[in-house]
Amino acid sequence: MLYANNIKIIQSPDVFSFSLDAVLLAYFASPPRKKSAKIVDLCAGNGAVGLFMSKKTAGKIIAVEIQEKLFDMAKRSILLNRLDEQMKVLNIDLAESFKYLEKDSFDTVTCNPPYFSNLPLSKKNENQYLAIARHEITVNLRKIIEVSSGLLKMNGKAYFVHRPERAAELFSLLQENRLSPKKIQLIYPKKDREANMILVEAIKDGHPNGLRFLPPIIVYDEQNEYTPLLRKMIYGK
Amino acid sequence: MLYANNIKIIQSPDVFSFSLDAVLLAYFASPPRKKSAKIVDLCAGNGAVGLFMSKKTAGKIIAVEIQEKLFDMAKRSILLNRLDEQMKVLNIDLAESFKYLEKDSFDTVTCNPPYFSNLPLSKKNENQYLAIARHEITVNLRKIIEVSSGLLKMNGKAYFVHRPERAAELFSLLQENRLSPKKIQLIYPKKDREANMILVEAIKDGHPNGLRFLPPIIVYDEQNEYTPLLRKMIYGK
Repeated sequence: MLYANNIKIIQSPDVFSFSLDAVLLAYFASPPRKKSAKIVDLCAGNGAVGLFMSKKTAGKIIAVEIQEKLFDMAKRSILLNRLDEQMKVLNIDLAESFKYLEKDSFDTVTCNPPYFSNLPLSKKNENQYLAIARHEITVNLRKIIEVSSGLLKMNGKAYFVHRPERAAELFSLLQENRLSPKKIQLIYPKKDREANMILVEAIKDGHPNGLRFLPPIIVYDEQNEYTPLLRKMIYGK
Repeated sequence: MLYANNIKIIQSPDVFSFSLDAVLLAYFASPPRKKSAKIVDLCAGNGAVGLFMSKKTAGKIIAVEIQEKLFDMAKRSILLNRLDEQMKVLNIDLAESFKYLEKDSFDTVTCNPPYFSNLPLSKKNENQYLAIARHEITVNLRKIIEVSSGLLKMNGKAYFVHRPERAAELFSLLQENRLSPKKIQLIYPKKDREANMILVEAIKDGHPNGLRFLPPIIVYDEQNEYTPLLRKMIYGK
């Protein structure tokens, strides 16, 4: 189980704050527990997903983040949580991953990618940090899936969180890149609302069938309070 | 809204009984309301999906069923419900559909197909009626999707109910056959259980993106009673 509140995360609302997406992705991902496990988190932002996942595995976690300010925050959070033996962060462009990370070697890849495929021109200069984190400016979903598949060893698993409206594109790209979806979990803001996030586990070179849809995650109850599952994820109780 | 209890359905447990799948598919499908609408229900069994859908549209409904006994039950149910002006049933092999039904002419196709891709040899002769309804003996999913797409006009919509474990295959086949998934709704037997059915709406020649996941359908509450939504679907209240 993941207890987000036992991890201290350095963040700045001007630049980027980790969000529920990171908590959910770390909750959903199942890296091997063993110390020899190799895990990489792409589009890592301030490192929240990797930091949360450190509770679930004794394996090595490498975070990849292109933005220097966010890379810097992630580095400081790793030290603050005394995780520098287990986790490190690289300030590199994900497209250059294979220069720094061995191909076909990782057990687990996680990624909370930029959700929006394009940015209205007028908004491009408002806040470059947030724009890059949210929009496909420096990277797009096709490149992310290609790199994820390249990093994974056979039967390695990739975990993504994305918006439902991009799910069809995500499934096509997975299929094109030797990744078969095995588990899907939908996040519904309330029990009578449409899903606003989708979690996908895909296995490299896995069988095409056998897809499972895990129980629905409902975020808020009728009183607009977090449901018990969400409270447990966020506050540990 | 669909009230299953206002429709009388002739069935025999030895041959085939309509199930919750038919109720859910008819609930999920949105045929145009107008009298000129053309709707076809493939793998119709005893006609339950078409009979339920008759409450939602004034359009013409054609049911296609290969098994003569089931065709016969569907025909009698149509008469019993005085729907013979609106609905008819054809005792044909779905693969021969284009001999009897005009290509590119339908607004809506629905199908509750056989769920299992193969049948253990030992069981093949136990009950041939049920075996054909449940297993891909006379038809398979590829053929169903091909025929569905062929029957639909541009922007026409197909509605399928299937098992989650076949969803990845279903999505691939839709994509191969000019059908883009637009809406998905998952059925969970209980709120903390994995989905056991998936409803998919796909549009012919539609845009690849914009997929929506409708609110989760939970079948039973904690007391193992139908939830209010299910009671409404099945009993009308």
